Amino acid sequence: MSEQPEKQELIRERFTKPLTEIAHRFSSSIALDKKLYREDIAGSIAHVTMLASVGVLSNSESDVIASGLREIEEEIANGAFVLDDHLEDIHLAIEQRLTEKIGALGGKLHTGRSRNDQVALDERIYLKRAIANLLNILRELQSALVTKAEENLGTVMPGYTHMQRAQPVLLSHHLLAYVEMLERDHSRLSDAAKRLNFSPLGSAAFAGTPYPLDRAEVANALGFDGALRNSIDGVSDRDYLIEVASACSIAMMHLSRFAEELVIWSTKEFGFVQMSDAVTTGSSIMPQKKNPDMAELVRGKTGRVYGALFNLLTIMKSLPLAYNRDMQEDKQPMFDAIETTADCLQMMRVLVEESTFSKERMQEALRDGHLTATDLADYLVLKGATFREAHGVTGRLVGYCDSADKQLWEIDLAVLKEFSSLIDPDIYDALDPIKSVDRKQSSGSTATNEVRSQIDRWKLSLQL
Amino acid sequence: MSEQPEKQELIRERFTKPLTEIAHRFSSSIALDKKLYREDIAGSIAHVTMLASVGVLSNSESDVIASGLREIEEEIANGAFVLDDHLEDIHLAIEQRLTEKIGALGGKLHTGRSRNDQVALDERIYLKRAIANLLNILRELQSALVTKAEENLGTVMPGYTHMQRAQPVLLSHHLLAYVEMLERDHSRLSDAAKRLNFSPLGSAAFAGTPYPLDRAEVANALGFDGALRNSIDGVSDRDYLIEVASACSIAMMHLSRFAEELVIWSTKEFGFVQMSDAVTTGSSIMPQKKNPDMAELVRGKTGRVYGALFNLLTIMKSLPLAYNRDMQEDKQPMFDAIETTADCLQMMRVLVEESTFSKERMQEALRDGHLTATDLADYLVLKGATFREAHGVTGRLVGYCDSADKQLWEIDLAVLKEFSSLIDPDIYDALDPIKSVDRKQSSGSTATNEVRSQIDRWKLSLQL
Amino acid sequence: MSEQPEKQELIRERFTKPLTEIAHRFSSSIALDKKLYREDIAGSIAHVTMLASVGVLSNSESDVIASGLREIEEEIANGAFVLDDHLEDIHLAIEQRLTEKIGALGGKLHTGRSRNDQVALDERIYLKRAIANLLNILRELQSALVTKAEENLGTVMPGYTHMQRAQPVLLSHHLLAYVEMLERDHSRLSDAAKRLNFSPLGSAAFAGTPYPLDRAEVANALGFDGALRNSIDGVSDRDYLIEVASACSIAMMHLSRFAEELVIWSTKEFGFVQMSDAVTTGSSIMPQKKNPDMAELVRGKTGRVYGALFNLLTIMKSLPLAYNRDMQEDKQPMFDAIETTADCLQMMRVLVEESTFSKERMQEALRDGHLTATDLADYLVLKGATFREAHGVTGRLVGYCDSADKQLWEIDLAVLKEFSSLIDPDIYDALDPIKSVDRKQSSGSTATNEVRSQIDRWKLSLQL
Amino acid sequence: MSEQPEKQELIRERFTKPLTEIAHRFSSSIALDKKLYREDIAGSIAHVTMLASVGVLSNSESDVIASGLREIEEEIANGAFVLDDHLEDIHLAIEQRLTEKIGALGGKLHTGRSRNDQVALDERIYLKRAIANLLNILRELQSALVTKAEENLGTVMPGYTHMQRAQPVLLSHHLLAYVEMLERDHSRLSDAAKRLNFSPLGSAAFAGTPYPLDRAEVANALGFDGALRNSIDGVSDRDYLIEVASACSIAMMHLSRFAEELVIWSTKEFGFVQMSDAVTTGSSIMPQKKNPDMAELVRGKTGRVYGALFNLLTIMKSLPLAYNRDMQEDKQPMFDAIETTADCLQMMRVLVEESTFSKERMQEALRDGHLTATDLADYLVLKGATFREAHGVTGRLVGYCDSADKQLWEIDLAVLKEFSSLIDPDIYDALDPIKSVDRKQSSGSTATNEVRSQIDRWKLSLQL
Repeated sequence: MSEQPEKQELIRERFTKPLTEIAHRFSSSIALDKKLYREDIAGSIAHVTMLASVGVLSNSESDVIASGLREIEEEIANGAFVLDDHLEDIHLAIEQRLTEKIGALGGKLHTGRSRNDQVALDERIYLKRAIANLLNILRELQSALVTKAEENLGTVMPGYTHMQRAQPVLLSHHLLAYVEMLERDHSRLSDAAKRLNFSPLGSAAFAGTPYPLDRAEVANALGFDGALRNSIDGVSDRDYLIEVASACSIAMMHLSRFAEELVIWSTKEFGFVQMSDAVTTGSSIMPQKKNPDMAELVRGKTGRVYGALFNLLTIMKSLPLAYNRDMQEDKQPMFDAIETTADCLQMMRVLVEESTFSKERMQEALRDGHLTATDLADYLVLKGATFREAHGVTGRLVGYCDSADKQLWEIDLAVLKEFSSLIDPDIYDALDPIKSVDRKQSSGSTATNEVRSQIDRWKLSLQL
Repeated sequence: MSEQPEKQELIRERFTKPLTEIAHRFSSSIALDKKLYREDIAGSIAHVTMLASVGVLSNSESDVIASGLREIEEEIANGAFVLDDHLEDIHLAIEQRLTEKIGALGGKLHTGRSRNDQVALDERIYLKRAIANLLNILRELQSALVTKAEENLGTVMPGYTHMQRAQPVLLSHHLLAYVEMLERDHSRLSDAAKRLNFSPLGSAAFAGTPYPLDRAEVANALGFDGALRNSIDGVSDRDYLIEVASACSIAMMHLSRFAEELVIWSTKEFGFVQMSDAVTTGSSIMPQKKNPDMAELVRGKTGRVYGALFNLLTIMKSLPLAYNRDMQEDKQPMFDAIETTADCLQMMRVLVEESTFSKERMQEALRDGHLTATDLADYLVLKGATFREAHGVTGRLVGYCDSADKQLWEIDLAVLKEFSSLIDPDIYDALDPIKSVDRKQSSGSTATNEVRSQIDRWKLSLQL
Repeated sequence: MSEQPEKQELIRERFTKPLTEIAHRFSSSIALDKKLYREDIAGSIAHVTMLASVGVLSNSESDVIASGLREIEEEIANGAFVLDDHLEDIHLAIEQRLTEKIGALGGKLHTGRSRNDQVALDERIYLKRAIANLLNILRELQSALVTKAEENLGTVMPGYTHMQRAQPVLLSHHLLAYVEMLERDHSRLSDAAKRLNFSPLGSAAFAGTPYPLDRAEVANALGFDGALRNSIDGVSDRDYLIEVASACSIAMMHLSRFAEELVIWSTKEFGFVQMSDAVTTGSSIMPQKKNPDMAELVRGKTGRVYGALFNLLTIMKSLPLAYNRDMQEDKQPMFDAIETTADCLQMMRVLVEESTFSKERMQEALRDGHLTATDLADYLVLKGATFREAHGVTGRLVGYCDSADKQLWEIDLAVLKEFSSLIDPDIYDALDPIKSVDRKQSSGSTATNEVRSQIDRWKLSLQL
Repeated sequence: MSEQPEKQELIRERFTKPLTEIAHRFSSSIALDKKLYREDIAGSIAHVTMLASVGVLSNSESDVIASGLREIEEEIANGAFVLDDHLEDIHLAIEQRLTEKIGALGGKLHTGRSRNDQVALDERIYLKRAIANLLNILRELQSALVTKAEENLGTVMPGYTHMQRAQPVLLSHHLLAYVEMLERDHSRLSDAAKRLNFSPLGSAAFAGTPYPLDRAEVANALGFDGALRNSIDGVSDRDYLIEVASACSIAMMHLSRFAEELVIWSTKEFGFVQMSDAVTTGSSIMPQKKNPDMAELVRGKTGRVYGALFNLLTIMKSLPLAYNRDMQEDKQPMFDAIETTADCLQMMRVLVEESTFSKERMQEALRDGHLTATDLADYLVLKGATFREAHGVTGRLVGYCDSADKQLWEIDLAVLKEFSSLIDPDIYDALDPIKSVDRKQSSGSTATNEVRSQIDRWKLSLQL
């Protein structure tokens, strides 16, 4: 393990007193930004390669620096170079280690660059990778949902509004609603990735540099779509981070809804889902408990991602240009939002896979709650009533059923006819909750053929 | 003025007691959603037109309903039909008024539809219009900034990091940094508009309907790119709203930064900007005050938009599908986020127009603060030093200047040479803060030719 | 109705241009702060009374001003003086109206005062009243809960953790848990009221004034515990507002939990509660629906109060002393947090009163879910097992029951003994869920005598 | 080092499959809750001591368990027992280690207890200590401010509103405003500590227990004011945590304001404060920079504490009673809010100590900006004008000064008299900005004698 460099000694030539210990601890970011060492080194290698191509460094200088950086990456990965907390930040730590290894030449690495554009670069490289990972995990969760939807295509369940049984729907249709939400999450994160895919390098501190940097070359080498157009903007803004945290927050909002449903559906009272032992836990005191902890944790971790978003928005509020040290505080919420969201998406995929939905309990639940009252109203409309009249007749009939403690289909035709002369014997078909779903005709509805075709579309697009 | 319908009487046929007064007040949304009457009527007209085209209504039925609706729109616009607070919501209010006007036929309007898909539709139509308006206002603010940037192209000012004078930049370059930020705000809002541009109509309550609706036709008639693919998703989600509130929050974050700068720059101490009497206010007690209230209010209203975002995120957290009444609470933050952002963007445009930047004070500020220390370091690098050596020499020289209470250019060459033998007489050129900006060579830098070309690019794209 | 004064004309003597229309609209606060007219006038009367008592005004001057102010209060209350939106703020509007009424003497009202200390005073008076109101409403909700708890004392229900049936508890015990939470809300708001009960008046703009004001007299006349000790602090801070918004947020968090339970308990699946028609609503499309909208709205409005809190925290972040115009934006979240919380507390009281809990459904739910497994473990411990052994035996027995599809009390003694030789015939008593509650011995437990004594204590303290 | 226990094996007797690796990682809290090992062990020792005193354990059993626990505390403190991440949580880890050490008797520790009341207890013990620490640090920061205030008592500076120079104040008066704010922070945290100082132990899972626990004894032994009165409430709520996070957020809001001022005051333009090298940092590219990073970080970390608050509020929103696993997520924001606030308060104390305020620059700033315009208006009032007339005269005079580019005191008496005949030669005294402060007569004002007496009061109360 290498000897550690003194904190900030590289850049405090004009200071007469060292930083006090508390100020050092308070301002050190190494505990967090060491996660960015790969991004930092990739950026540095691209930078020196370009410096050679424009003649600011010789090719051999660039090569020595680049291979030194590659060695340091290896040292960090295998634990030979430990990034411990007495260092200030990842950028100075690597540069100082480089100088230990290759001597004064290491001092040329920072030519035409500042930590200001360096950290913005590292974050953007990190986010490109992190979003690519999130996009994959989103696809895996969508795939698990589509697979479950296909497996359970024959299951009719009560759809709910206000948590009250409302109309029969296919379980598969319900699951596909989440696939749609996740698709928009995917789209939002893709847009964010596209929007942040520009390189700040060459902004230097914020004014640009007198070296004839080829910013487009570096950008291209690092897989960016180009270089940012204004050097002050290049180091000042963090809207890209907030946008990603916001997209993560929305995805977590979606997951929290599904998690809530899994928790409710796994109650004894609902009994709609059974999650396997592999994803449920026990109680330290109540030996019978099998708890849906993973779903609860997903729901709870929503707060963490929301908190990260508000943290970032607060940090950036009212900061004058260009760089301010407040912005160093962006890393904790960035990592927290990304990692929590990735964990929750993965956990949710496992939960879907480890869940067994109970067709029996779901269909049992269709028998009580007048779930086909809307079907009855629609029946009357198709026989010529206005919708409002039909709604009125049905409302009164439901009231009658409740007072008689009966379901709609248990009422004699003669009685039904007292409520509306439009009612004929074919009414009993309209009142069957299982048949209800397939009477739907609108595109995107819960009718089996509509849902089947949505599953097929998703399987094609998800390559299942 | 028409007689007002009873609250919810249309849909409470099976209830034996009326809603208590407090519950009515608590649940009424008319005070807010009456803003959506145009959207609601546009959606209803498209709906009945389609109902006729698929044969659910006759053409004449559809025509009578549509013209009744157009009359109601007119009545609301001219105050003849007052949407007062004892009504429940805009949807029922309009339907009931329709029935008053055209009789029982009005009851056919709601065929194949629910308030659930209706309100989601109204919000999406509103947001399409609201975003289009925001995009225009963003362009106007960008245009004002580009115009100011062009007018002030000759003004060099200190760029700041950590609020400390750092390096000379062009004021125009600083202003263009905001144009870039606003461009991303424009892009984010455009993406949001594109993502939400699908019609929920035909989702009905959430399961779809047994009527053979042509959802694509309605979507097309209302200018949507298509219909949403899953009826449960169509009424359950509000991610589109949160995405817009988030884009507004980021835009407000940008405005808060510029507002902060205007406040600081208009202090006696900075004196960089003078805002005209048309946008400044006095004090009730201190007769000499001329306060930058408009900039402060923009900064303060950031909290309002952030608050709206967190309001929405909180509302939607953990809500099971499909519709829950909690979601009615989305309107206040939706309107608040949109209207506040629009107001602030407009106010900021006026502030830019009414601001006069003081070249004199800005350039005076360049004379103290060693703003060309980086130029000196770069000078040494170009003469052969490594960047780290150059940084070290410069740091020591700055320390010397401070102790001697001198500026870098006031030091004799002989003394300079003691710090580094690489220093030659041409050094004084490198130390001139005005010349500093044009020594920058990197693209996107503050060099006049770079900034000039950015202005030209913006003028072209903004059609100035 | 009086003729309206020109905006800000009182204080713009040195300005050469009027405020533009957009800036006037943007900065006007009258639409919100007109709610504070009573507080403003009360403060002004106390101020002029004191000015007379210290000799700055004559008694007759003070009397004329005070009676003019009382007339204006009357004019506003009865609509004769309309505070419309073209005015700037409530303070200037009242002063200008005063001058219209009593002539130049009105100009003496503002002696030794600034809008800065005036608005802080108005807010504090408003909050004192608003908190007193909230404290009353909290007591009413607690009373409704205690009354329900007493009426339902014989009802045993499943207690839940992780939404899984866990152990039997008394419904009354569950309801009293909320009474405890609300008691802390009461305590928090009382502390906030105590902490803010100091008068800022006499701070003037922020530096104090050269008039020999008797700040203690004014404070006393307005019911404050004293005057704030530092004039800069007196106009600069808004921590009192944030503290109140935070206490409201916590109270809303509590309400959101109870609202969630009411929503879940009123599902068909649980069937634990029936809310009367007076507080439930129907569906525009599904005629059978009876929705717990009021509970959902309480849950949703939680977002509004959280949003107000974050609005305020954002506004105040990083504001330099003393007054900044950003702080004018505090009124919308102040009113919103207070009014929403008051409405929700009241609504919740009505919901409690209008709810009927089903002893039958609750006790039915005790029969499935091994709710007395913990009792079995405790039984074994009391017979000599360690808790961990007992937990193990019980866990295995529950597994056996599940595979045999039986409840614990349905297992033969011989089989039970195979799991533990400590089991005797008295075990069946231990397995009875109804008897479980009264076996609890710890204070504060769900045993009937404990709950009875808690009810008695609350009745005494709430004077029921 | 001990062999590690298997995850959750103690409590999964009825499970047939182990928890999958991802679910284990996802649900493990040991990485965070290991910080609570001291609190956990203190609680356990108090618990077993009480179990012996009520006869549930023998004295010797209790002693063996207690001394085993003390050894484990020692093992953790000295690193012999490593709480690594494959464990589930601190509670099970300690119990399992206990059983390794003392055998089956360890299984008696958990008698009459659940992790639900255990974790609530640990948090409350932690918070009592954490708040006590925060209260001390608050006092230290107040002391540093009072000391600075006393040292700088002779320094007059411009007070600002809207960041515009407004009226002269003593620097000491300005510093004491923060002492007042911090006093309220102290009061708020003290109230929170008082409100949370009740023991949940004996709530067990949530229903209480059949063991004759003496809850008051345990509460007393652990320094609580008593036991919570309702066992469901005892494990369900986290309002105490949110209240503390809210008090921390308000304190951070206060710090962010002072931090902002330090940043602004340390600009070249203001030059009001110089922070020593011990607390300022350099730039990686600009060798002349001396940046107020510590103040910026305090300002930025405000976001972190606000984020923690919103995290907690989100977690708890809409959670049904009693315990839900979501609540495990409370620890990260709890530690983050507490530790960040403690760090920032300490850092701010060091910043105050390491700051030198420039009387010269502050008094220089009094010479421009018409800071005594209010004094002139007050002068006229004391000569008989109404305040509004006086405000008007002064406003016009300021306008004249601006157009003549003069300060008020540079205007000839004859000219002054043209604006008001009330003006006499003694006017020049009224226009002197240094003398302005001592003309203030109201209590709490910036007059030297008032400030002196406030300093004396604080020194007494802070025992300086």
